[in-house]
Amino acid sequence: MKTIQPRTLKGFRDFLPEDMKIRQRVIALFRKVFESFGYEPLETPTLEHADILLGKYGEEAEQLIYQFEDRGGRKVAMKYDLTVPTCRVVAQYGDKIPLPFKRYQIQPVWRADNTQKGRFREFFQCDADTIGSSSMLADAEFIQMGLEIMAQLGFSDFYARINNRKFIDGLVQYAGATPEQFYSICIAIDKVEKIGLDGVIAEMEKKGVSQPVIKKIIEVVSLKGSHFELISTLKTKMKDIPIALEGLNELSTIFSYLKTAGIKDELYSFDLSIIRGLSYYTGPVWEFTVRDGGVGSVAGCGRYDKLVGLYLGHDIPATGGSFGIERLFEVIKERGLLKDESSKLELVTIFSPDLVLQSLSLVNTLRKNGKLVMLYPDEHAKLEKQLKYANKKGIETVYILGPEEIEKKQVKVKNMKTGEQKTIEINK
Amino acid sequence: MKTIQPRTLKGFRDFLPEDMKIRQRVIALFRKVFESFGYEPLETPTLEHADILLGKYGEEAEQLIYQFEDRGGRKVAMKYDLTVPTCRVVAQYGDKIPLPFKRYQIQPVWRADNTQKGRFREFFQCDADTIGSSSMLADAEFIQMGLEIMAQLGFSDFYARINNRKFIDGLVQYAGATPEQFYSICIAIDKVEKIGLDGVIAEMEKKGVSQPVIKKIIEVVSLKGSHFELISTLKTKMKDIPIALEGLNELSTIFSYLKTAGIKDELYSFDLSIIRGLSYYTGPVWEFTVRDGGVGSVAGCGRYDKLVGLYLGHDIPATGGSFGIERLFEVIKERGLLKDESSKLELVTIFSPDLVLQSLSLVNTLRKNGKLVMLYPDEHAKLEKQLKYANKKGIETVYILGPEEIEKKQVKVKNMKTGEQKTIEINK
Repeated sequence: MKTIQPRTLKGFRDFLPEDMKIRQRVIALFRKVFESFGYEPLETPTLEHADILLGKYGEEAEQLIYQFEDRGGRKVAMKYDLTVPTCRVVAQYGDKIPLPFKRYQIQPVWRADNTQKGRFREFFQCDADTIGSSSMLADAEFIQMGLEIMAQLGFSDFYARINNRKFIDGLVQYAGATPEQFYSICIAIDKVEKIGLDGVIAEMEKKGVSQPVIKKIIEVVSLKGSHFELISTLKTKMKDIPIALEGLNELSTIFSYLKTAGIKDELYSFDLSIIRGLSYYTGPVWEFTVRDGGVGSVAGCGRYDKLVGLYLGHDIPATGGSFGIERLFEVIKERGLLKDESSKLELVTIFSPDLVLQSLSLVNTLRKNGKLVMLYPDEHAKLEKQLKYANKKGIETVYILGPEEIEKKQVKVKNMKTGEQKTIEINK
Repeated sequence: MKTIQPRTLKGFRDFLPEDMKIRQRVIALFRKVFESFGYEPLETPTLEHADILLGKYGEEAEQLIYQFEDRGGRKVAMKYDLTVPTCRVVAQYGDKIPLPFKRYQIQPVWRADNTQKGRFREFFQCDADTIGSSSMLADAEFIQMGLEIMAQLGFSDFYARINNRKFIDGLVQYAGATPEQFYSICIAIDKVEKIGLDGVIAEMEKKGVSQPVIKKIIEVVSLKGSHFELISTLKTKMKDIPIALEGLNELSTIFSYLKTAGIKDELYSFDLSIIRGLSYYTGPVWEFTVRDGGVGSVAGCGRYDKLVGLYLGHDIPATGGSFGIERLFEVIKERGLLKDESSKLELVTIFSPDLVLQSLSLVNTLRKNGKLVMLYPDEHAKLEKQLKYANKKGIETVYILGPEEIEKKQVKVKNMKTGEQKTIEINK
C-alpha cells in the first residue's frame, strides 16, 4: 500500500488528549472569570480581507502575516491578533453592539515566525477588552480580574505592575529630553530590573542622552514609597506638566478603585519600568507578573483610545489586555496545577465475550452516576491486554466483572496505581 | 481620517455574544456527553502539508480545499474535515496514542464553497470516533451517545436510522444487479421517504435497472416488522449471500447492545434507505433524525475500516460520526432550547460620580455570590443612559444605588422586562 508520510508543518501542533484537557481547563477558567465580570464572548473568522489587517501592526510584524489569494482572486490574510478584528467588528455592526462593549475572545492566531526561536506559527490568544469607556473603572476592573485569574489558576505569588503612558510622556518632558530620545529612554527604563540603575544610566549615555536629563530620569526612577506617596511626590515634582498630572491622576483613580474592590496593596505596584509597546497605548499600561518559580510576565495590557477609529472615522476609547495563554498552558502542565480529580476517566473491562452485556450494563450504571467511564471496545480482547491499556492511558480505576462477581451481584474494582483491589456491591 | 471599510469575507462569519453564548452551551454539552462515554479531546492544526489532505476526498471536493504556498515555498492547505487529520495523528504518534483511541474533535474547517447556496466557507465540525476497534460495541455505543445528546439538547422526538453497507452490497447481489448499477440503486433507495416506492421504481427504471432486479429490491425495501423480525426474515432470504449475512449479524449485535443499554425500541430503526456517502464506509452506517418541527438528519455516522491505513500501510478499524453542529446551533437558537437562567448578566448602575465606590463595592459583593454582573463602566453617564444600555443588551436585572439606599444599606433592584422594582438589604 502506498502511504503518505504523516507529519505536521513546522510551528504547528497537534494537541493530544493529555494536553487538550489542560488547555480546556485553563480556557474554561478564563471564560468563567471573564463572564463573572460581564465580559461576553466574541469570535471572528480565521480569514479577513487583507486590507483589514495590513497597516496596523508595523512593517516588520506584517512580514509575518499569512497572506494569499483565494479562488475568487481576493487578497485574504489569516488573523494575526484579536484586537484588530475586534475593532473591525465594533465599527462594522453599529447599533447591534451597544457600547460600552465588553468582550473576550480566545482563539488561535497565525504568524509566519521563526520556529528556530521556539516560536509557534499557530497559537491561541486570550483577550478581554472594554470598548467605549474612557473611565478608569474599566482599567481597574481588568486589573482586579487579572489578579483573580492568577489566584484561581493556582499561583501564590503574583502582582500587577502598573504605569501610565501619559506619565511617561510627562517624565520625558520633565527631564528635558527631546522627543527623539523618548524611545531610548523608555527602553533603558524598561531594563531597570535586569541591569540595575547603573545599567540604565550606562544605556542612556550610550544613546547620547545628556547628563542633566539622565540625572532627572534617575531621580524619578529611583523613588520609593507606597503607591499614594509616590503619586503625591511626583505630582509635586511635575506640577507644571499637564500630561504628567493627567497620567498620575488616572493612576491614583485606579489605585482607589482597587482599594475599594478589596485588593491588597501588595498585589499591585506603580512600576515605572512598565512601558508596553511603543506606539499603541494611550493611557494606563500594566502587566501581571507571577513570581512563583520565575514564571514572569503573563499578560500585556493597557488603554488604546485611537485604534477603533481607524475603521470608524472617529475615536472610541478602549482598554484591555491579552493573556499569554500558551505560556500559561505550559506552566500549569509543568506544575500540575488545576488538577481535576472528578474528571478522571475509568475503565470497565470485558471478562469474556459471553459476559459483554453485563459489562455494558455496568458502564451505563456508572455513567448515570456521573462517572466518566469507557467500556473496553473489544469483547474478544484478553483481560491482561485491557489492563495494560489502562496502564498505558494512565487510567487508575478499572472494573472487572467475572462470572463469580456477576453471580454475587458484585464488581471488582482495581486501582492500577496501588494495585489495591476491592469488591463492591453493584447496587452501590 | 482615512478609514478602512469594515467588512467580512463572503462565507465567513463573526459570532457576536448572543450567538456565541448558544454555541458555547451546545459545545459544552457535546463535550460533557462525549467525555462521559470516555471520548477524549483532540485538536489538530488549521494548516497541513497539502499532500496530507489531497487524494482523500475525491476530485470535486478537492476543488474546495483552500491551498497556498507559504513563505517557505511549502504547499499548505486548510483543514477540510476532522477525519483525515485524525487518521494522520493516529499514524504519526504510534505508541503515544494507545489503541483503541476514542477521540472527539470540535473545530472549524474551511471549504471554498458556493456561498450563493447558503453554504459557509468556515464552519465547525463536531466529530467523535473510536479508532482501533472492530467491535460492534463501538458502533452501538456511538448510537446510544447520539440519542443521549439529542435528549440533552432538548429535542423530544428523534431516532437513529441504522443500516449496514455490507448488507447493501449483499442486497445488490441478491437482486442480481450488476456492480455498475450499485450506485443507481442506492441513490434510488435513498429517496424512498421523499418519493415513495413508486418513485423508487421509476427512478431505477430510468437508470436501466431490469424488471426482475427492481422486483427483488422492492420486495426487500417494502418489508415491515420489528428490528429483529426484519433481520430474521432477511437472513432467511439471503442465506446464500455471505456479505449480506455478515452485515445482518453486525446489525443484530448492535440492536442487542442497544437493548442492554436500555435504549427503547422506538428510538432506533433498521432503515434500508440510509446509505451514507458511497465509497467511504465499510460496515454499519447510521444517522440521527430529529422529527420535532422537521429538523431532519443531524449527524452522519458509520464504520470506515480502511482510511487510517492510507497513512500507515496497514488497516486500523474505525467507527464514528460527525454531528451537523452548525445546523444544531441554528435550530437551538430558533427554538430557544438550552436556556441557562443562571448565566444571565446583570448590571450595577452608578447613580452619580461621587457614589462610584459604593457601586463598585456592590458589584464585588454580587460577584462573590456567584452572579455574572457588570458595573456600568462610566461614572459620568446619566442613570437613564445606563438603563437604556441594559434594555439594548437585554439585561433584565439592574441594581440602583442612590444616596437614600446607601444610607439605609439597601439597594433598589429593577426588572427591566416587567418594570417591577424592589428594595433589598445589601447584606442579603
